[in-house]
Parts: sequence; structure tokens; C-alpha cells
Amino acid sequence: MDPRYITPFIASIQNVFSTMLQLPVSIDEPRLKQDNRATYDVSAIIGMSGDVTGNVVLSFPADTAQRLVALFIGEDISTDNPDFADAIGELVNMVAGNAKADFSGKAVSISCPSVIIGQHHAVSSGSDTPCVIIPCQTDCGELAIEIAIRETNAASTGDSTAQAA
Amino acid sequence: MDPRYITPFIASIQNVFSTMLQLPVSIDEPRLKQDNRATYDVSAIIGMSGDVTGNVVLSFPADTAQRLVALFIGEDISTDNPDFADAIGELVNMVAGNAKADFSGKAVSISCPSVIIGQHHAVSSGSDTPCVIIPCQTDCGELAIEIAIRETNAASTGDSTAQAA
Repeated sequence: MDPRYITPFIASIQNVFSTMLQLPVSIDEPRLKQDNRATYDVSAIIGMSGDVTGNVVLSFPADTAQRLVALFIGEDISTDNPDFADAIGELVNMVAGNAKADFSGKAVSISCPSVIIGQHHAVSSGSDTPCVIIPCQTDCGELAIEIAIRETNAASTGDSTAQAA
Repeated sequence: MDPRYITPFIASIQNVFSTMLQLPVSIDEPRLKQDNRATYDVSAIIGMSGDVTGNVVLSFPADTAQRLVALFIGEDISTDNPDFADAIGELVNMVAGNAKADFSGKAVSISCPSVIIGQHHAVSSGSDTPCVIIPCQTDCGELAIEIAIRETNAASTGDSTAQAA
């Protein structure tokens, strides 16, 4: 995947977590997701369409997600409180929204976030788009950004780097 | 939710399942999702953006999903085979794509599908958008379409609208 679609997410999560949660985020080496075996307890998914198509997922162990939500809204709530999913969805919305603002010259729409809650679920975004995992460490625990996006083919964008039909 | 955003999904799932799987679908009374307690084993999520924003989810018990995939690709495969998630994603892509073609006069983009696999997970699309559940019955078992979409309000589009950097 083009690194100019990776680095905006690193800057964005550090910026959003620092601003909204006063929480530093350290980034481990991004890697290609090789299988669907990575599983999480809480995932927030946002779809992208337009010049760039695909999905961005923020995934957490449940205890990390609960600590982040407590920092974000100022109180401890359980994962089945509707405010929990709303808070996690708002975090991914800010991370994806800030990141796409750095996709220079690309017109990209993002969908509303979906939040998945359930022990050890796997998220797959289709085997035709490579998925890059950015592992993140915080004082609230570890989390991961999974990015499976690609430029929409030239037929619909006028891009000169046309895909062969 | 405006019924003209519900009926296209009913026509679409019946059309897609009949054409692709030779499988009739009977529809139970659509209802408002009242809480996040409804859980599934397999969910395929597609985001919509543009004049209509939100998410469409096709959710199944694992055995229903496996029977549908076997009909679709002609062989039994396990849920951790990457082709399984691809097949389920393709089904939701066709259902959402056909449905949005009937949103008269609305320009709507759909994202690539995400497929969630994990026993008893819950999907939340944010408490600010009502979610309508359409329960479906087939000879392969039951499934549900969950639709949480709304017309984009020009005054408060925020990050949901296209933005060229």
C-alpha cells in the first residue's frame, strides 16, 4: 500500500488521542495483515469511498476500549451502554476524518462508524485489498489501526495511472 | 425512517438471493432496533455516504451463513477460509448496490464490505440514527438486514461529505 495512505493515520491517531484523551500513542512497525486470525473484542469500522475506497478499523481488547472511553467521556461505563459504542465510534470518526484530510488532492467520503462488540471477533475487508496493521501502544493498553484502502480505478477518477481493463 | 429507504432493500435481497442462490426470501415485519442485544455470528457491513449516510448490515447465524456460501460458490468451506468472508461480502455488496439504485434521485456511494466473524457479536451504528431491522426467512435459515441510514443534512455533514484537500 502506498505509504502516503499510512502516515496520515499515524499522525492522526497521535493527534486525536493527544488532544481528546491527553494520551500519547507510540507506534510499532506497520505490517501487512497476513490472515484473519487477529481477533479483538471491540472494533470500530469506517468505510471510505470516492477517490479512495476501502475500510479503516480501530480494534481494541475490551479493557483497553473501556479505559479509553472512561478517559474520553469522564466516567466508567460498561460495553453494553449505548454511549460506549457512540464514544468508540466517535474516536474512529475523528481518526479517519483527520487522516483523509491529508490525502492530498483526493476527494474521499467517509461513512458513519459501525462498532462491533463481541469477544474474539475477526474483521475481514476482502482479500482483493491488502490490509496494513499499525500496532499502537498506550498507557491504556494496546490497540491497532487496520487500513484496507486503495485508490479507486482510473475509469471513474480520470487518474492517469490507469488499471489495465 | 422513510419507507422509501426500506422497500428497496426488501426488493433487493429477494432479487439477489433469487438470482444468485435460487433461494426465495420471505420477509417478516420490519421493526425498529431498540437495543444492541441482538447478536449474530457473521455480519457483513457496508457504509453509505453522499446524499444518504449510514450503514447497512447483513447478519446471520454461522450455520445460515455457511449454507448460503455453499449455495453461492458451490462448495462447503469453513468460516476461517478467506473465500468465506469474500462471498459474504459480495452478497451484501449486491444487496446494498441494488437497493441504492432505487433511491430515486440520490447520489450515494457505498464502501467496500467489512465482514465480521465471531460468535454472538453486536453491531451498533450509533444512537443518533434509528436502525430498522428487516427479519428474513429462507430455507437456509434466518438472517436480518439492519439499516441505519438517513438523508445527509447539508448543514451538518461534517466528515461525512466529500472533501478535496
